[in-house]
Amino acid sequence: MRIITPMFKTAVFGASGYAGGELVRILDDHEAFDLVHLGAHSQEGSRLADVHPQLKGGDRRLGSNDPSSVDDIDVAFLALPHGASADAGRALRQRGVVVVDLGSDYRLDTDSRYRIAYGSPHPYPEELGEWVFGLPELFDVAGAKAIAAPGCYPTAVLLAAAPLLEAGLASAEGMVADCLSGVSGAGRSVRAELTFGAVDEGVRAYGVASHRHRPEIEMALDLRLGGEHRVVFTPHLVPMQRGILATVTLAGECTTEEARRCLADFYRGAPFVDVIDQPPQTRWVVGSNRALVSAFADERTGRVIALCAIDNLVKGAAGQAVQAANIALGLDETAGLAQSGWMP
Amino acid sequence: MRIITPMFKTAVFGASGYAGGELVRILDDHEAFDLVHLGAHSQEGSRLADVHPQLKGGDRRLGSNDPSSVDDIDVAFLALPHGASADAGRALRQRGVVVVDLGSDYRLDTDSRYRIAYGSPHPYPEELGEWVFGLPELFDVAGAKAIAAPGCYPTAVLLAAAPLLEAGLASAEGMVADCLSGVSGAGRSVRAELTFGAVDEGVRAYGVASHRHRPEIEMALDLRLGGEHRVVFTPHLVPMQRGILATVTLAGECTTEEARRCLADFYRGAPFVDVIDQPPQTRWVVGSNRALVSAFADERTGRVIALCAIDNLVKGAAGQAVQAANIALGLDETAGLAQSGWMP
Amino acid sequence: MRIITPMFKTAVFGASGYAGGELVRILDDHEAFDLVHLGAHSQEGSRLADVHPQLKGGDRRLGSNDPSSVDDIDVAFLALPHGASADAGRALRQRGVVVVDLGSDYRLDTDSRYRIAYGSPHPYPEELGEWVFGLPELFDVAGAKAIAAPGCYPTAVLLAAAPLLEAGLASAEGMVADCLSGVSGAGRSVRAELTFGAVDEGVRAYGVASHRHRPEIEMALDLRLGGEHRVVFTPHLVPMQRGILATVTLAGECTTEEARRCLADFYRGAPFVDVIDQPPQTRWVVGSNRALVSAFADERTGRVIALCAIDNLVKGAAGQAVQAANIALGLDETAGLAQSGWMP
Amino acid sequence: MRIITPMFKTAVFGASGYAGGELVRILDDHEAFDLVHLGAHSQEGSRLADVHPQLKGGDRRLGSNDPSSVDDIDVAFLALPHGASADAGRALRQRGVVVVDLGSDYRLDTDSRYRIAYGSPHPYPEELGEWVFGLPELFDVAGAKAIAAPGCYPTAVLLAAAPLLEAGLASAEGMVADCLSGVSGAGRSVRAELTFGAVDEGVRAYGVASHRHRPEIEMALDLRLGGEHRVVFTPHLVPMQRGILATVTLAGECTTEEARRCLADFYRGAPFVDVIDQPPQTRWVVGSNRALVSAFADERTGRVIALCAIDNLVKGAAGQAVQAANIALGLDETAGLAQSGWMP
Repeated sequence: MRIITPMFKTAVFGASGYAGGELVRILDDHEAFDLVHLGAHSQEGSRLADVHPQLKGGDRRLGSNDPSSVDDIDVAFLALPHGASADAGRALRQRGVVVVDLGSDYRLDTDSRYRIAYGSPHPYPEELGEWVFGLPELFDVAGAKAIAAPGCYPTAVLLAAAPLLEAGLASAEGMVADCLSGVSGAGRSVRAELTFGAVDEGVRAYGVASHRHRPEIEMALDLRLGGEHRVVFTPHLVPMQRGILATVTLAGECTTEEARRCLADFYRGAPFVDVIDQPPQTRWVVGSNRALVSAFADERTGRVIALCAIDNLVKGAAGQAVQAANIALGLDETAGLAQSGWMP
Repeated sequence: MRIITPMFKTAVFGASGYAGGELVRILDDHEAFDLVHLGAHSQEGSRLADVHPQLKGGDRRLGSNDPSSVDDIDVAFLALPHGASADAGRALRQRGVVVVDLGSDYRLDTDSRYRIAYGSPHPYPEELGEWVFGLPELFDVAGAKAIAAPGCYPTAVLLAAAPLLEAGLASAEGMVADCLSGVSGAGRSVRAELTFGAVDEGVRAYGVASHRHRPEIEMALDLRLGGEHRVVFTPHLVPMQRGILATVTLAGECTTEEARRCLADFYRGAPFVDVIDQPPQTRWVVGSNRALVSAFADERTGRVIALCAIDNLVKGAAGQAVQAANIALGLDETAGLAQSGWMP
Repeated sequence: MRIITPMFKTAVFGASGYAGGELVRILDDHEAFDLVHLGAHSQEGSRLADVHPQLKGGDRRLGSNDPSSVDDIDVAFLALPHGASADAGRALRQRGVVVVDLGSDYRLDTDSRYRIAYGSPHPYPEELGEWVFGLPELFDVAGAKAIAAPGCYPTAVLLAAAPLLEAGLASAEGMVADCLSGVSGAGRSVRAELTFGAVDEGVRAYGVASHRHRPEIEMALDLRLGGEHRVVFTPHLVPMQRGILATVTLAGECTTEEARRCLADFYRGAPFVDVIDQPPQTRWVVGSNRALVSAFADERTGRVIALCAIDNLVKGAAGQAVQAANIALGLDETAGLAQSGWMP
Repeated sequence: MRIITPMFKTAVFGASGYAGGELVRILDDHEAFDLVHLGAHSQEGSRLADVHPQLKGGDRRLGSNDPSSVDDIDVAFLALPHGASADAGRALRQRGVVVVDLGSDYRLDTDSRYRIAYGSPHPYPEELGEWVFGLPELFDVAGAKAIAAPGCYPTAVLLAAAPLLEAGLASAEGMVADCLSGVSGAGRSVRAELTFGAVDEGVRAYGVASHRHRPEIEMALDLRLGGEHRVVFTPHLVPMQRGILATVTLAGECTTEEARRCLADFYRGAPFVDVIDQPPQTRWVVGSNRALVSAFADERTGRVIALCAIDNLVKGAAGQAVQAANIALGLDETAGLAQSGWMP
């Protein structure tokens, strides 16, 4: 006999995007959440099947993205564009709803960091202290009421590098994080540079020296390790739907074996992180909430190359948000989250 | 409170291929099956993670593909190459194990059909009457002890065409089934024509006028509708991992509306088949056990174009096998099977 | 020593699209054409490099798409949206400019056919008789002053089927043309259904029973063979940049050998068509102006499956337009046109 | 009137691989070379069409890869596996044939470097001084009789980084070269990890801290700049046919503008290198011999990110070999080489 956890009445705001669709897919099959509201902006009023034909229950109607339109929910997931979750997140939190924000509005811990990243002050700087950075392998989210789930790139970079830095096996001096992302990481917007004709059979760097995920990476390292970190972060777009690979080069004189042992020690007990002996492939994690990490010492240059592969929409977005919510609400950390991937 | 079904001790033979991997992924999360044996041929002795790095429980060892090596199982799924399941299937069935064969050895109903398809007599012609063709939307598998799950192409073609033919809205005279398949349909073998360099950015027909799935399609039509059917079947390889689209052109004077209403009536109550008003896309079903079907009348030529999209490895293989097993064993037909897909 | 043909002053109107870009690429390296004007609509004034970063001479400015803005040209290629070349083509033709229109405005031979295809009368029905259907393997374009280059699908379907029909080896009764196209065939427009996230890893039929290339196919068969033809034509979108494969099923009792011999006889002397003994792959022609054709008899059903692979942007658009212009202007048919493809 | 250069009788050894195929495609249309011999190993005796169905002249037979089987050639291109060109290259050079080796056997300048890279002594160390490193933008190949064309990765990394290092705008201290390659870079071998099912929709690093192109990069920097260089080089496999993107992070306090001006000054007069103001995309160079380079200063960390995109089979292999041969033989550097690419 199995005891089934009581249900939390749950809303997803921003259900029409890629991360929103993944939230619906995961929460629909999660026994602890009862998905009672799907919010959307321009797609309000549409059938779910018109927006996400891949999802079951396609006859459900998308409602409003305005939180005030929904009474009586216990948990809300926000998958809104940058800037849009500041208001919604604050209003829901103040109503006592447990909120997991997949956006970037509450990820940075101080107004000054926010100003550096976004060039303007945060609308509610006093809120910033109320939110927890929801990367469960590195930050404690138990009992949290307001969780800012990290970006997909920071998740991958931090999972690869943080244990080695914390153990002193490597230093962040001259740290270079080159990351490769599938196209779903750019969101679902319709832009010329995201057409099949502009993406297929090509790769490109973008946001070079200017991407907004860099301050998140630096903040998380500062918070976890102390000090002030500065990293080179160059994201690249790769012709595939999903997956992020972070290739992080650190200064460090350790051996390959020491680096991997350090990672293995760090992630002992982490149900979603596996340390492996070969370069991780994104294909091995697509569809699951797993992260695969590895490390290689380059003795000739005194560097360590740390690698991490995740699914950007699962461990890098919707899956991690559910993982954090599971922990925050006292559920089993793995509830409702696939540990086997889909490929091929 | 939920009642959890008692477990069936279960083996997968041929666990190292694509369909085998999907069986493991699905059965691992299926509450009614307890996966106690993973059989493999050349990979016997390997860790599961070496063969299927995307799957959880990677430390499990692959055992033998010889059924006599495994005592005490209730259910066996066979995902073996053509010719290999004749012996294993017979031996297991005679031991009283419920067998679902994903291969082609027991799909045809008579030795003469088998000779036409494969050019040689069946090794155990007397066995053929013991096996049920496991396409649950068209054939009854309740209580079956030996199920031959249909091929991926026949599944898609039959789901699109059979209801229209049965209702008399269309005739199979001059029926043309052009089908498009992702590359996983070719299996996991390492051949020059399946390298990325030989597949990416190209399409081709193959097995023109000679593919072995044609006799299966014809047999199923004969069994369901009576008479003797002859169809043109041309499969094509498309540069994607998964998915089959069947485009079936039939003679028929009905309207689009009549054709779709016929399909909707036929599949009322079928949990995995949805009739839609637009051409189905394989992206909408990849990862789920769903089939999407639609039809369009071409009044100018007096033809009906019926379309069906499935995931070749799920509804076209592992998922359908589990669906059939669910029914055969008296479980809920949908148990353990995703109805939401994965894309993007 | 080689004699170099005198130059024709040449304009490309609609240079910013995919076919326009291919015209520029080909004409830039063609010794008989001097490309003096690149016209564009919304991109007028842009640098070529901003629109086609893959092309040399990126500092050239795009001028107007209005033919009256350009004096003193001998030849014009039009790669304009449907409806836009009716005016431009007429004006240029009346000025004595040799015009090759890659659009659909002048492809159909009569106003009544045009009305059926487009639902409205042709703006200049009296012009229709002035234009030649520019498929050089089937229609004579020598000396033509106004050429309507055929669509990509009709090119592939007609090259596969016409010789067999003309020789009487097969009949068009119940003819089914299922075609697969790379995404560039949909043009360069920015639409949700053409984003990478909506195309990659999926296939779909579209324009079922309603695509505008069908009347072109039927007209060409009528013109070449006499009588009135009706065909089922179902195009599909495949996740690749380029290439069209036509799979045409015809009624016919001939053998495979007879069918291929017929094709080989027909295309003897055609520099761009090769008859091969296996199913043609689009990868083998991408980047070249070649068409590969083959045929397979299906004796069980009394059908012949004829196949043709082309590059939709070369033999299906820009290359064929140049081929037709070469012939019309008395140049070597193959001048400036690649016969080797690019893959991998 | 145009003066056509006299022909050089030319052989390609290793014509059956990807680089060999590209050599044939380019040389077939190059007026100065008369391709009289196509050598192959296991494919000796095959028709060219069986090996490279995309190439014209498919009826040509592949001959032997043994140079002694061919008399009377002026120029030879070698596209052989590592180890195979040491003998052939030496024999041909000693016969007075101008040799361009696309392999790695003669790229390193000293036996000690060779031992470090390959773990064994060079079979003909006395030959090493006879060969020129054939990267024409950085090394002088005029009049050379024996040219070792560089690897694809070194070409991209060196074109991005060398000018900035030489000008003193950046230092190689802590230099990190993360490179992304299309799958054709792995050659045409048939291996499980190169099947479509193992490559599509995924990325991976490989050869981490151990790839054999690293010593080439270091040697070229040593030769050009003096001193001893050590670089971190991490190649990645990306699901596309062609293209390499090098993302090279260097220490340097310059501005973006200074870095780009330095690159523009360096490549003034180089017909195949363009300096652009945005991150270069591999799609923009595929099919051409062009390299696109750019640079971005990251003032926060005191780093410069230099980027270079090339087609690995053209500028990274066959095209560059022909470019070097053009110069060595006194032809126009650009003869026979496309400067416009193919995409989409």
